[in-house]
Amino acid sequence: MSRELPRVLFINGPNLNLLGRREPGVYGSESLADVERRVRRRAGDLGCEVEFRQSNIEGEVVTWLQEAGEGSGFDAVVMNPGAFTHYSYAIRDAISGAKVRLYEVHISNVHAREEFRHHSVVSAVAAGIVVGMGTIGYELALDAAVRTIRA
Amino acid sequence: MSRELPRVLFINGPNLNLLGRREPGVYGSESLADVERRVRRRAGDLGCEVEFRQSNIEGEVVTWLQEAGEGSGFDAVVMNPGAFTHYSYAIRDAISGAKVRLYEVHISNVHAREEFRHHSVVSAVAAGIVVGMGTIGYELALDAAVRTIRA
Amino acid sequence: MSRELPRVLFINGPNLNLLGRREPGVYGSESLADVERRVRRRAGDLGCEVEFRQSNIEGEVVTWLQEAGEGSGFDAVVMNPGAFTHYSYAIRDAISGAKVRLYEVHISNVHAREEFRHHSVVSAVAAGIVVGMGTIGYELALDAAVRTIRA
Amino acid sequence: MSRELPRVLFINGPNLNLLGRREPGVYGSESLADVERRVRRRAGDLGCEVEFRQSNIEGEVVTWLQEAGEGSGFDAVVMNPGAFTHYSYAIRDAISGAKVRLYEVHISNVHAREEFRHHSVVSAVAAGIVVGMGTIGYELALDAAVRTIRA
Amino acid sequence: MSRELPRVLFINGPNLNLLGRREPGVYGSESLADVERRVRRRAGDLGCEVEFRQSNIEGEVVTWLQEAGEGSGFDAVVMNPGAFTHYSYAIRDAISGAKVRLYEVHISNVHAREEFRHHSVVSAVAAGIVVGMGTIGYELALDAAVRTIRA
Amino acid sequence: MSRELPRVLFINGPNLNLLGRREPGVYGSESLADVERRVRRRAGDLGCEVEFRQSNIEGEVVTWLQEAGEGSGFDAVVMNPGAFTHYSYAIRDAISGAKVRLYEVHISNVHAREEFRHHSVVSAVAAGIVVGMGTIGYELALDAAVRTIRA
Amino acid sequence: MSRELPRVLFINGPNLNLLGRREPGVYGSESLADVERRVRRRAGDLGCEVEFRQSNIEGEVVTWLQEAGEGSGFDAVVMNPGAFTHYSYAIRDAISGAKVRLYEVHISNVHAREEFRHHSVVSAVAAGIVVGMGTIGYELALDAAVRTIRA
Amino acid sequence: MSRELPRVLFINGPNLNLLGRREPGVYGSESLADVERRVRRRAGDLGCEVEFRQSNIEGEVVTWLQEAGEGSGFDAVVMNPGAFTHYSYAIRDAISGAKVRLYEVHISNVHAREEFRHHSVVSAVAAGIVVGMGTIGYELALDAAVRTIRA
Amino acid sequence: MSRELPRVLFINGPNLNLLGRREPGVYGSESLADVERRVRRRAGDLGCEVEFRQSNIEGEVVTWLQEAGEGSGFDAVVMNPGAFTHYSYAIRDAISGAKVRLYEVHISNVHAREEFRHHSVVSAVAAGIVVGMGTIGYELALDAAVRTIRA
Amino acid sequence: MSRELPRVLFINGPNLNLLGRREPGVYGSESLADVERRVRRRAGDLGCEVEFRQSNIEGEVVTWLQEAGEGSGFDAVVMNPGAFTHYSYAIRDAISGAKVRLYEVHISNVHAREEFRHHSVVSAVAAGIVVGMGTIGYELALDAAVRTIRA
Amino acid sequence: MSRELPRVLFINGPNLNLLGRREPGVYGSESLADVERRVRRRAGDLGCEVEFRQSNIEGEVVTWLQEAGEGSGFDAVVMNPGAFTHYSYAIRDAISGAKVRLYEVHISNVHAREEFRHHSVVSAVAAGIVVGMGTIGYELALDAAVRTIRA
Amino acid sequence: MSRELPRVLFINGPNLNLLGRREPGVYGSESLADVERRVRRRAGDLGCEVEFRQSNIEGEVVTWLQEAGEGSGFDAVVMNPGAFTHYSYAIRDAISGAKVRLYEVHISNVHAREEFRHHSVVSAVAAGIVVGMGTIGYELALDAAVRTIRA
Repeated sequence: MSRELPRVLFINGPNLNLLGRREPGVYGSESLADVERRVRRRAGDLGCEVEFRQSNIEGEVVTWLQEAGEGSGFDAVVMNPGAFTHYSYAIRDAISGAKVRLYEVHISNVHAREEFRHHSVVSAVAAGIVVGMGTIGYELALDAAVRTIRA
Repeated sequence: MSRELPRVLFINGPNLNLLGRREPGVYGSESLADVERRVRRRAGDLGCEVEFRQSNIEGEVVTWLQEAGEGSGFDAVVMNPGAFTHYSYAIRDAISGAKVRLYEVHISNVHAREEFRHHSVVSAVAAGIVVGMGTIGYELALDAAVRTIRA
Repeated sequence: MSRELPRVLFINGPNLNLLGRREPGVYGSESLADVERRVRRRAGDLGCEVEFRQSNIEGEVVTWLQEAGEGSGFDAVVMNPGAFTHYSYAIRDAISGAKVRLYEVHISNVHAREEFRHHSVVSAVAAGIVVGMGTIGYELALDAAVRTIRA
Repeated sequence: MSRELPRVLFINGPNLNLLGRREPGVYGSESLADVERRVRRRAGDLGCEVEFRQSNIEGEVVTWLQEAGEGSGFDAVVMNPGAFTHYSYAIRDAISGAKVRLYEVHISNVHAREEFRHHSVVSAVAAGIVVGMGTIGYELALDAAVRTIRA
Repeated sequence: MSRELPRVLFINGPNLNLLGRREPGVYGSESLADVERRVRRRAGDLGCEVEFRQSNIEGEVVTWLQEAGEGSGFDAVVMNPGAFTHYSYAIRDAISGAKVRLYEVHISNVHAREEFRHHSVVSAVAAGIVVGMGTIGYELALDAAVRTIRA
Repeated sequence: MSRELPRVLFINGPNLNLLGRREPGVYGSESLADVERRVRRRAGDLGCEVEFRQSNIEGEVVTWLQEAGEGSGFDAVVMNPGAFTHYSYAIRDAISGAKVRLYEVHISNVHAREEFRHHSVVSAVAAGIVVGMGTIGYELALDAAVRTIRA
Repeated sequence: MSRELPRVLFINGPNLNLLGRREPGVYGSESLADVERRVRRRAGDLGCEVEFRQSNIEGEVVTWLQEAGEGSGFDAVVMNPGAFTHYSYAIRDAISGAKVRLYEVHISNVHAREEFRHHSVVSAVAAGIVVGMGTIGYELALDAAVRTIRA
Repeated sequence: MSRELPRVLFINGPNLNLLGRREPGVYGSESLADVERRVRRRAGDLGCEVEFRQSNIEGEVVTWLQEAGEGSGFDAVVMNPGAFTHYSYAIRDAISGAKVRLYEVHISNVHAREEFRHHSVVSAVAAGIVVGMGTIGYELALDAAVRTIRA
Repeated sequence: MSRELPRVLFINGPNLNLLGRREPGVYGSESLADVERRVRRRAGDLGCEVEFRQSNIEGEVVTWLQEAGEGSGFDAVVMNPGAFTHYSYAIRDAISGAKVRLYEVHISNVHAREEFRHHSVVSAVAAGIVVGMGTIGYELALDAAVRTIRA
Repeated sequence: MSRELPRVLFINGPNLNLLGRREPGVYGSESLADVERRVRRRAGDLGCEVEFRQSNIEGEVVTWLQEAGEGSGFDAVVMNPGAFTHYSYAIRDAISGAKVRLYEVHISNVHAREEFRHHSVVSAVAAGIVVGMGTIGYELALDAAVRTIRA
Repeated sequence: MSRELPRVLFINGPNLNLLGRREPGVYGSESLADVERRVRRRAGDLGCEVEFRQSNIEGEVVTWLQEAGEGSGFDAVVMNPGAFTHYSYAIRDAISGAKVRLYEVHISNVHAREEFRHHSVVSAVAAGIVVGMGTIGYELALDAAVRTIRA
Repeated sequence: MSRELPRVLFINGPNLNLLGRREPGVYGSESLADVERRVRRRAGDLGCEVEFRQSNIEGEVVTWLQEAGEGSGFDAVVMNPGAFTHYSYAIRDAISGAKVRLYEVHISNVHAREEFRHHSVVSAVAAGIVVGMGTIGYELALDAAVRTIRA
C-alpha cells in the first residue's frame, strides 16, 4: 500500500458544517474550514495529500466510503461520523464491504455525554479511534494513518 | 426574538406526503395540502408567516433545521419527524446544534401504537410536544410558537 | 357529544398546588390560581364551562375521572397527573373504564428530565397529549377538546 | 382457626365500582352489587359470613387489610386489587405484616392483556390466586377459603 | 357446548406422578391417585365425567390436547403443565390450535418460588387459572368448567 | 436556618402502625409509640421539638411534606416511607418541590431483603439516609438533623 | 390484482452495488448486474416484467416504495434493504403506508452473523421473507410474488 | 453431493398435523396432506424424491435429523419446526452435529405475531429460511435445495 | 447411603449418540461406546456398578431420573444433559423432586461457546459439576460420586 | 460481646486519603485526619477505643476485615469502602466469611450521583448503612455500633 | 509438555485462608492446610509436584499466573479464584496472555447461591472447571491436569 | 500549567508486562521496553520528560494517579489501564479526585473484541482516548498531551 504520496480522505458527517457555531463549549470555536487549514498544513509536513468532504446525507457518506476502499486512489479515510456513529449500519457495511482503512474521530469526549453517545456501531470495523482530543484528533489520526501506510 | 411578523417553518418527515392516503383510520383523510391550507388560514389569523417543506431524506431535514436555527430568518420550527422520530440522532443534533426552537408534532397517539413508536430521540431537545390530536396538532403548535415568540 | 355549552373538567395531580412555589426554573412562577384564571378567560372566549380540581390523593383523582366519563355532565377532562403519570395504573383504568375523553398535559418537558419521567402509563389511553409548553399547555388542550367536541 | 361461623372479608380495589359498566367485553355486564348478591347466596350455602368493601384509595385498602389479619374477627380476605395489583407494595406489606390469609382474584385473564398486567406484586404473599374465571372467581375463592378454614 | 353429561379431561405434566413423594412441604402428601379419587367424587356430585392422564413427555401432552379441542368428545381440559408451564410453546400452540377450553392449575404458589416459575407461556391462552390452592385447585377448576359448560 | 428550638417532623408511612406486631424478626418488638417515646427523650436531650405522624395514605404523606418544607415551621423531616419508598414519585416530588430537608430511615436492612426493596425513588432527593440500624435509626437521623440545623 | 403482465420492482439498498466485490466469502462473487441478468431470465420464463433499482440513500428507497404501492403500476416489490433492515422505520412506514406487497430478501444468513443483524424492523410488514439462500433468494421471491399475484 | 435423484426429507413439527383445521386465518385451509400432494407434484417436476414426516415429540425430530445428515441417504431437510423453533436447542444441535443441510420454513409471518415467535434458535444453523409465504414456502425451499444440490 | 457395591446411573441426553461423529474438534473422536468402556474399567477399579442410557427424548430422561432418586437402587446419577441443559425445567424438577444425587458433566467448555450455552437450568440442583474436561469428565464425576457415597 | 471497652476499627477505602482535597463540593473540606480527630473525641465521650486505617489496595482491606471479625479484638468495623463499594465481592465475602459486624458509611449521597454509584455489593451483609450525612456519618455509625455492642 | 515430574501450581484467591472457619455449612470444616495436605498425598500417588499459594490481592494472583504460563516450570494451574471469579478481568487476561493451562475450582455449588455467583469471567479461558464437589474438587482437577499433561 | 519541560507519567496496568509475549496477533511483538524506548525518543523530539511505570496491582495504580494529579510534578498521565478499564471505579475516582489530566490508550481495538471490552469505566473522566492504533497510540497520546500543556 506504498505509493509516492499517500492520499487520505477526510469525511465529516451531519452537523459538522456547524463547527465553531454549534455548542462551542463542547466543540470549540474553530470552524470546519479552520480545521481543514490546520490539517492541510500538517499533511504538508507529513508529505501526503488530503481531501475534505462533509455531508448531512448518510447515503452520500456511504458512497464516498465505497470510493475510498481497497484499490481506490485513497490509502485511508479519517472520518467523524457525527450522529451517524450511533445507528448507521449502512456506513459500517460500507467500511467493511469496501475494505476501507478507517480512522474514527470524535472531537468531544462522547463517553462523558448522553448515554446514547457511548456506543458506536462503526468502531468495530475501524483501524483506530481517537476520542475527546478536540480538533487535534484529526491530525493525530492523520499521523497514525501515514505512519501505517508507510510502515 | 420579536420582529414585525413571526416566521415559522413547518417540516414534515418521511411518508407524510402520503397523508390522507396512508392508513386513514390512523392518520385521517386530509392530505398534507389540506393541512397546509388550514394552517395558513390560522397563520393569517395569528399574523405570522409560515413555510411548508416535506422530505423523505433525513439529510435534507437536517439541512433545513440548520437553516432555521438561532439567527436565521425563522423564529421557530414545527416538525412532524415521522419515523425519523425514533432513530435520527442527526436530526436531534441539528436542533440543539443550530439552536432551533422546535415544536414536535405527532398526528396519531404514538403511545397507543407499536412499542418502537413510544420513544422519541428528538423530544429531549424540543421546546414543546403535541401528540395524538390529529392534524389540529399543527395549529396548536403554531399557537404556542407565536405566543412564545411574542411573549 | 354536542350540547349547548361544552363542559371540561381540569384535574391537577399531586404537588401541582405548589405551582409557582415549586422549582420555578422548571415550572414557572404562576400559581395554579393564576393558571385557572387564565384558562377561565380562554373558556369564556371559546364558549365553554370549566371546573378545576386538585388532589394529592390518587383515589380521589380516580373517583373524579369516573364522574367525568361517557354519559356524565362532562365532555372531556384535561389532566396534569403530576407524578402519578409514571405509575398510577388505577388512573389509567379509570380513564378507559369510564370512557373519559382525556387530554394529558405536562408543564415541563418531561423528556428532558430524569429517566423515570420519560414514561407515562396514562398516555396510551389519552385522546391527546401536550408536553413542555409551560402553562399554555392547559389552554391548548382546552382548544383541542372544544374543537373535537364541536366537530 | 375454627370458630362457629367463618368470616371472610371481600375487598375490591379501584374502578371495580364500575363493574358492569366498564368494558363489558372484558369484565362482563354484572354490577358489583350483582356479584355481592351471588356471593352472599353462596356464603349462605357454605355457612359463613361475608362482608363487602370497595375503595379507590390505596391507603384505605391497606387499613382494611390490617384490620383483617391474624387475630382479627376475619378468617380470610378475598381481594381483587384492581390496578393496585401491579405496583402497590404497601398492600403487599399489609398482607404479610398483618398475616392476612389472602385470596387474590382477577375477573379477566390478565395474562392475555397488556404486558404490565402480567405481573402482580401481591401474588407472592397470597394463599391462593384465581384468574380469568369471570365473577365466578370470587365464589371459587370463597369455597377455597372456607374449606381451608374448616380443615 | 351442552350435552347430557359434560366431559372434562385432566392432564398432569412431568413429575406430577411423584405427587405425595416430591417435596411434601411444597406439594402436600396426597398422591395423584388420591387427588383423582377426590376429583371423581366431586365430578359425581356435579354430574360430569372426568378422565385422568399423566405424562412426562411433552409431545404426548400436545397430542392429548389436540384430541380434546373443539368438536372432540371433551368440553374442557383441566391441566397442571408442571415444568412445561415455563417453556412449552408447543403446548400453548396445541391449546389455541385445537381450540381447547383450558383451565390451568398449579398446586403450589409459583409466584412465591424461584424466578423462573413466575412466568407461564400457557396462561395467555387459558380460560382460567388457579394457583397455590393445593390440590383443591383441581376441584375449583372443575367447578368453573362445569358451570361455564352449563351456562 | 437557626431558630431557638429546632423543630423536626417525623413521618411514618404505610404499615408502620403495625410496628412491634409486624414480622418482629425483621422489625423488632417495639411499637411505634415506644419509638416515639424514645425519640422524644432524645429530642429533649438535644433541645429540639419533634412531632410524629403516621399514615397509610400516600396523598396525606405528600401533603404533610408540603407543610414541612422551606419556610414552614419545620427545619427537617425524618421519614420512614415504608413501601412508598419503592414507587411513590409523588412523595419524591413533594420533597424536592417543597424543599424539604429530608432524612430517610429504614428500620431493616432493605438491601438484604427482596429485590424490589433495593431501590428507593426517594433517596436521590434526601439529605441523608440511615438503613438497617433498627429503631435507633430514627435517633441517629434526629442527631444528624439537629447538628446540621445548628451548624 | 391480475393484469396481463405482472410487474415487480426490485430494490437493493446500501452497499449492494458492491456485490461480488464485498466480502465474497459471505455474499458470493456475482455482481448485482449478474443477478439482474439471472432474474430477468427467470422473469421471462414466468411471463412478468421486472425493474431494478439500487440506492445508498434511505429517502430514495422510501420514495420508490411509495411509487410501488397499491394502485401503482407495480404488483409487488422484492427488496434487499441491506443495512437499512436494522433501523429504517421510515422504510417500514413506506411499506405499510403505501400498502406495498413486499418480499424481503437477504443473501447471507443474517441469523448466523453479528447480533445486530438478527432483528429486522421491516419483516413485520412483509408479505414474505427469504434469508440465506444466496442470490437465488431473489428468484424465489419473484416466484412467490408471481404465484400470489396470479392466484 | 450429486447422485442420480436428489432426496429431500420434509419434517413438520408439533401441531402441524392440525394444518387446515388450526387458525385458518393464519395458516390457510389446506391440510398437511394437501401440502404433501402439492410438494410431491413439484418434486416430480424437479426430478427429486421427497419423504414426509410429522411429529409432536421433540426427541423424534432430533432422531430424524440425525438420520438425514451428511453421509445419509438424504441430501437436504426442509423443516417447519413449529413451536420448537423458539426453544429446542436439541434440534439445533442435531442439525449442526449431524451436518444436516437444513431449510427452515414458516408458513405464517412469525415476525408479525407474538414477541416470542420473533426468535428462532434454529436459524443460525440453517442453510436457508423462508418465512410468511404460506404453504408455497415448502416448494420454494425444495427448489432452493435441489438447485444447490445440483450446483 | 453405604451398600456393598455402589450403583451409579449414567444418562446422556440428546445428540450424545453422535459422539465421535459430531464436531470432533469440539467433542473429540471417541464414540459413546468408547466412553462407556473406559468408564466401566474405572468403575471396576473403584468397585462400583454402572449403567448407561442415552435418549433424545426429554420425557424419557425425566422418567429415568425419577427411577434413580432417593430410595431407588441407584446411589447417584452422572448426567450430560446435552442441549436440555439450557431449558428443561422438567429435568430439573425430576432431580429435586426425586432427590437424585446428580453429577452434571459437560464434555466441552460451554462457557467458551455460544451465549445460550452459558446458562444451565440444572446446575442449581446438582451435587457437583464438571465442565470442559473432555470425556475424562465422566470418570471424575464417578470418582466424586463414589467417594461421597462411601464417606 | 460486652468487654470493658468496646473496640471499633475504622477502614477507609481507595481515594479517601484525598479527603478535603478531592471534589470539596461533594466531599467537604475536612481531611481524613480531621475526621479521625473528631471521631476520636466522640469515641472518648462514648468510652470506646477506635483505630483508623486507610488503603487503596483491595486485598489489604480484605485482610483487615478478616482480622476484625467474630472472636477478634474488635467489636465492629465502620467502613467507607470508597469505589470498592460497587464491585468488590472479595470485600463482601470477607465480611460474611469472618462474621464482621459492619457499618457501611458513604459521605456523599451516592443515590444522587452517577448510576453506577447506586448499587453497593456490600450492603446486603452490613449491619447498618449511613449515606449522605457528610463526615458526621462516621460518628453516627460509631454511636450505633457502641449502642448495639452494649445492648 | 512431558517432563519427568509434572508440576502444578495451586492458587487460592481471597478469603480462602478463612477455610474451615468461614461459613462451614457452605464450605466445610477443613482448613486450607488440611486441603493442602490431602492434595499433596494425592500428588504423591500421581507422581507430580505441587505448590500452594494464597492471596487476597488480585495483582499478586495476576503475577503468579504470569509465572506459571507456557514455558514456565509449571505445567498447569489449579485455581479457586474466590470472589475474583466474578469480576477480575485482569486475572482472565493473565491466563490467556501467559497461556496458562488453568483448572478452575469452586468448593460450593455457586449456581445454587446468590445470583452474582452464577457468572465467572474466568471460565471462558479455563481448560476445565469443577464446581460444588467440596474440597475433593482440588483433587479431581489435579487428576485431570496430570492425565492431560501425560497424554 | 506551563513549566520549562512538561512531564508526563506513563502507567501500564495488569499484564502489559507481557507485551510482545501475550497474544502477538492482537498486541504485536514489541515488548514494553521497546515501546518505552520509542516513546522516549519521541519525548526527546517534543522536548518533554517521561516516566514509565507498570503494575498488576490496582491499588498501586490508584496511588500513582493520586501522585500525578493537579499540583504534582506531572502535567499529564498516559495510561493503558489493561483489564482494569472495565471495572476499576477506584481508578476512575483517583483520576477525578486528584484532577489528573488523563489520556487513555488501548493498543488493540477493544470494540472488535469480546463484549465486556466494549465498556470503559474510565473514559468518562479522560481528557482523550486512543484505541486500536497499536503501540503508536502511546506516542499519539503524548503528542496530544504536550500540545495541550503548551497551549
